[in-house]
Amino acid sequence: MAMYCLLKLAPLFLAVAVCNGWLFGDFVGKQKEQDEISLWPLPQKFQSSAVAFKLSPASFQIVHAKQSSAGPSCGLLENAFRRYFEYIFGDLKKPEKSRKKVYDSDLVELQVWVTSADPKCDDFPSLQTDESYELSIDEPSAVLKAANVWGALRGLETFSQLVYEDYYGVNNINKTDISDFPRFAHRGILLDSSRHFLPLKVILANLEAMAMNKFNVFHWHIVDDQSFPYMSRTFPELSQKGAYHPFTHVYTPSDVKMVIEFARMRGIRVIPEFDTPGHTESWGNGQLDLLTPCYSGSSPSGTFGPVNPILNSSYDFMTQFFKEISTVFPDAYIHLGGDEVDFRCWESNPDIQKFMAQQGFGTDYSKLESFYIQRLLDIVAATKKGYMVWQEVFDNGVKLKDDTVVEVWMGNKMEEELQNVTRAGFTTILSAPWYLDYISYGQDWQHYYKVEPLSFPGTDAQKKLVIGGEACLWGEYVDATNLTPRLWPRASAVAERLWSDKSVTDVGNAYNRLVQHRCRMVKRGIPAEPLFVGHCRQEYKGL
Amino acid sequence: MAMYCLLKLAPLFLAVAVCNGWLFGDFVGKQKEQDEISLWPLPQKFQSSAVAFKLSPASFQIVHAKQSSAGPSCGLLENAFRRYFEYIFGDLKKPEKSRKKVYDSDLVELQVWVTSADPKCDDFPSLQTDESYELSIDEPSAVLKAANVWGALRGLETFSQLVYEDYYGVNNINKTDISDFPRFAHRGILLDSSRHFLPLKVILANLEAMAMNKFNVFHWHIVDDQSFPYMSRTFPELSQKGAYHPFTHVYTPSDVKMVIEFARMRGIRVIPEFDTPGHTESWGNGQLDLLTPCYSGSSPSGTFGPVNPILNSSYDFMTQFFKEISTVFPDAYIHLGGDEVDFRCWESNPDIQKFMAQQGFGTDYSKLESFYIQRLLDIVAATKKGYMVWQEVFDNGVKLKDDTVVEVWMGNKMEEELQNVTRAGFTTILSAPWYLDYISYGQDWQHYYKVEPLSFPGTDAQKKLVIGGEACLWGEYVDATNLTPRLWPRASAVAERLWSDKSVTDVGNAYNRLVQHRCRMVKRGIPAEPLFVGHCRQEYKGL
Repeated sequence: MAMYCLLKLAPLFLAVAVCNGWLFGDFVGKQKEQDEISLWPLPQKFQSSAVAFKLSPASFQIVHAKQSSAGPSCGLLENAFRRYFEYIFGDLKKPEKSRKKVYDSDLVELQVWVTSADPKCDDFPSLQTDESYELSIDEPSAVLKAANVWGALRGLETFSQLVYEDYYGVNNINKTDISDFPRFAHRGILLDSSRHFLPLKVILANLEAMAMNKFNVFHWHIVDDQSFPYMSRTFPELSQKGAYHPFTHVYTPSDVKMVIEFARMRGIRVIPEFDTPGHTESWGNGQLDLLTPCYSGSSPSGTFGPVNPILNSSYDFMTQFFKEISTVFPDAYIHLGGDEVDFRCWESNPDIQKFMAQQGFGTDYSKLESFYIQRLLDIVAATKKGYMVWQEVFDNGVKLKDDTVVEVWMGNKMEEELQNVTRAGFTTILSAPWYLDYISYGQDWQHYYKVEPLSFPGTDAQKKLVIGGEACLWGEYVDATNLTPRLWPRASAVAERLWSDKSVTDVGNAYNRLVQHRCRMVKRGIPAEPLFVGHCRQEYKGL
Repeated sequence: MAMYCLLKLAPLFLAVAVCNGWLFGDFVGKQKEQDEISLWPLPQKFQSSAVAFKLSPASFQIVHAKQSSAGPSCGLLENAFRRYFEYIFGDLKKPEKSRKKVYDSDLVELQVWVTSADPKCDDFPSLQTDESYELSIDEPSAVLKAANVWGALRGLETFSQLVYEDYYGVNNINKTDISDFPRFAHRGILLDSSRHFLPLKVILANLEAMAMNKFNVFHWHIVDDQSFPYMSRTFPELSQKGAYHPFTHVYTPSDVKMVIEFARMRGIRVIPEFDTPGHTESWGNGQLDLLTPCYSGSSPSGTFGPVNPILNSSYDFMTQFFKEISTVFPDAYIHLGGDEVDFRCWESNPDIQKFMAQQGFGTDYSKLESFYIQRLLDIVAATKKGYMVWQEVFDNGVKLKDDTVVEVWMGNKMEEELQNVTRAGFTTILSAPWYLDYISYGQDWQHYYKVEPLSFPGTDAQKKLVIGGEACLWGEYVDATNLTPRLWPRASAVAERLWSDKSVTDVGNAYNRLVQHRCRMVKRGIPAEPLFVGHCRQEYKGL
């Protein structure tokens, strides 16, 4: 039977772009069931037909292809097979083999074929990770082909999204061919565990949701002014005195390991942010003399400002601290912050003033900031890690390593900043339009969706330096009570913008798919909030 | 020992007003533990001392006072005793009597003394309900005195809020005298179960939260354009064809009974709203010819508008329907809606045009609207129920029964409307400033808190006609995934405005108490969202 572009079957569901170059044909039947299919984010190339296969939990299985370089010893894939089997069939357990019975129209297996010699089962994902995959659904076997496990994970998610229940509640999947890859390599979510402590299960649930949306970076803004929940083995007093509570509101080394491994199993990098020299009030509780004493007139006021940049002890501390961080977090990058340094305390302090004069900085405190950051970057570079920084670090003219990722977060002059950063040859990610802590009445996801990250003026070479973006949910007003429904499905808009083709911009089409995708998240146990009026068929299962 | 006004103990926690007329004294010690006390809403008269008593789950009990007209046969109070014992002691079960041991500083019981001859254990609360109570905490017994069970319920909540954990985690309560009563008689929450279906457990959880905030009216906007989840025994097709799903997304008669009884046990009235003639699209699915056929040119377009006001069958239907409603819902009031009638469909229909001409209405369709409403009101009046209406019904000059409650919801000219309604001698409630479905970044609870319902120009007699207000959470963007944290503690701001004295307006003071009150809700299992940065000591217990 001929293949038909899904565009013809259900115009609302897929944008024109995805059909370019594919065979077109007349629509024949089955529209109702096709409506249940709603891929998110939309794959790069997609071809589907009205031919449907049935999936039975008694006969269907996800298996390693014979040619695959991965096998049963690949724990990452074994776990993923189980996870997606459960997403598809819910609580239905696979019956004993003896009860297996296969009918003509059944799809009996999904073969996962990892093609490269090294499947990377035990690796960590990275910025260079190849996440592409090819998926072919046909009887009697579907085949998912990917260079390594990371692409396989993305393809498994897509496969699970293709399955829909027919009129009788039977799982179906249509004959389909997909060739898919991400538009941007860095697709992140920032969560803030300092303004409010986020229990481990909230973080893990959101990593689950990230995988459902093909996000691949968890930017963990782990500490800040308000609290220091990271339990350091080198400096245990940081959390003992800087966390909201030294036992109940901290991330132990074992917690951190669990987050990293849970993320790895889903192809998600964990990039911790230890923001200095500002945003460090909580550090001062457990580390004497780290922060600058502020002065009121000629005497210390008892309050403290940013990290004290004029003491060698500050740099000794950072050397030891980041040595630990570089071993605890396996990712090649650490986020070093560098944003929003308040100069008033430095200005008030006579020792700082003296140092400024000695260095010939005049009264330009951004030079002092850069002085600090420069030394910090060198310290971190010595641990063989790359670093990410907020845009101020670049703006202030600090000398950065070539592989530095500059994060553009300021909404005003965002395009100008992207131009400047990329003109200087640095890779950059965009978060300015995606501060999801800001809320407003109505469907604000549409604003996030309409952003085009490469709309700034610049050469092709400059555009290539934009490696992605991040949806940031700062923690002032969210904690375990409201974080997940506030983040999802609003962050899903960013997910599609960063994964799908540039031409995928039809908001009406996106709305229809996102309504279904949101219901799918709810069904899988993620309390994603509604886009608008309506209901999910299975909303009771997930809540 | 002398009694001290808590104002002296912890200035941030209680406003000046509550101390008027009470004995003042010097503050002695115990500030730290006092900080744990944070009553919400603030009682009318409050006096506390630093003398603390301990409460042990092994010895403390809530009992009927000997003089009380209520006893063990009063199921409402027995349930409340158990509920508040569990709020105070959590999972700790009361040990066997033989293990009971009483120490000198223990508070051994709270005696609940219902003073009127009829305790009203089996009644429903009403607009006339006396919710006042007096609470005296002293050794060896505390006494809660109220005319009937409704005041006792409010006093039990206050008692439970007075208990705090000391340094050792032991429950303490300070010597205290409280005399309390609500400023307004109608303190409501509107939930909308039509835009999204709200599972029963969501409604019940929010009734729990309402009781914690001394709200006393659940305004159940049960049906609307989008769906008709109310299962009618007289017209079962209304929900069979008008609900999102005929089995899973409906409120059965048993569900409705449960909501009403659960609310009654907490002193909360349930006022259902069946909004007509607009907002009725879902009614048309199950009731043929009820809605007006809209015309496109000279022929019906296939779409439908408001209830058809020119057919006798419409009034026959309403007569039967509201006869059922008046028996299902025990409250003396039914909300009949009457808002936002779109005239375009009526204008398009030639039969309606003809009727307009016959009646001499010209082209003033608000006259037709009033024609309909007038007949509807007479139908409902015949069931011996009172009615509430949205402000348009009054604005359009419909003749209303004297006891009608007009709900002012339009934000523009709100004060003018209050003036007009009360000048005409009608009781009114205010919801215009409290549409909690509108969200914005930051602490919007402060805006709700700062509203003064009686700030409009008018005589004392007019002001007395303002019997309260309602916080409305319309359902376009909320369902089971996000409703509860979006409503609480934002609605708590409205709760205090409607209960406490007019002079209680200090936002800083309110912030400090509300932070604690919000943590108390979380501890009791209500996922109320955070006001700002910080943490709850016991946030893990509730989540």
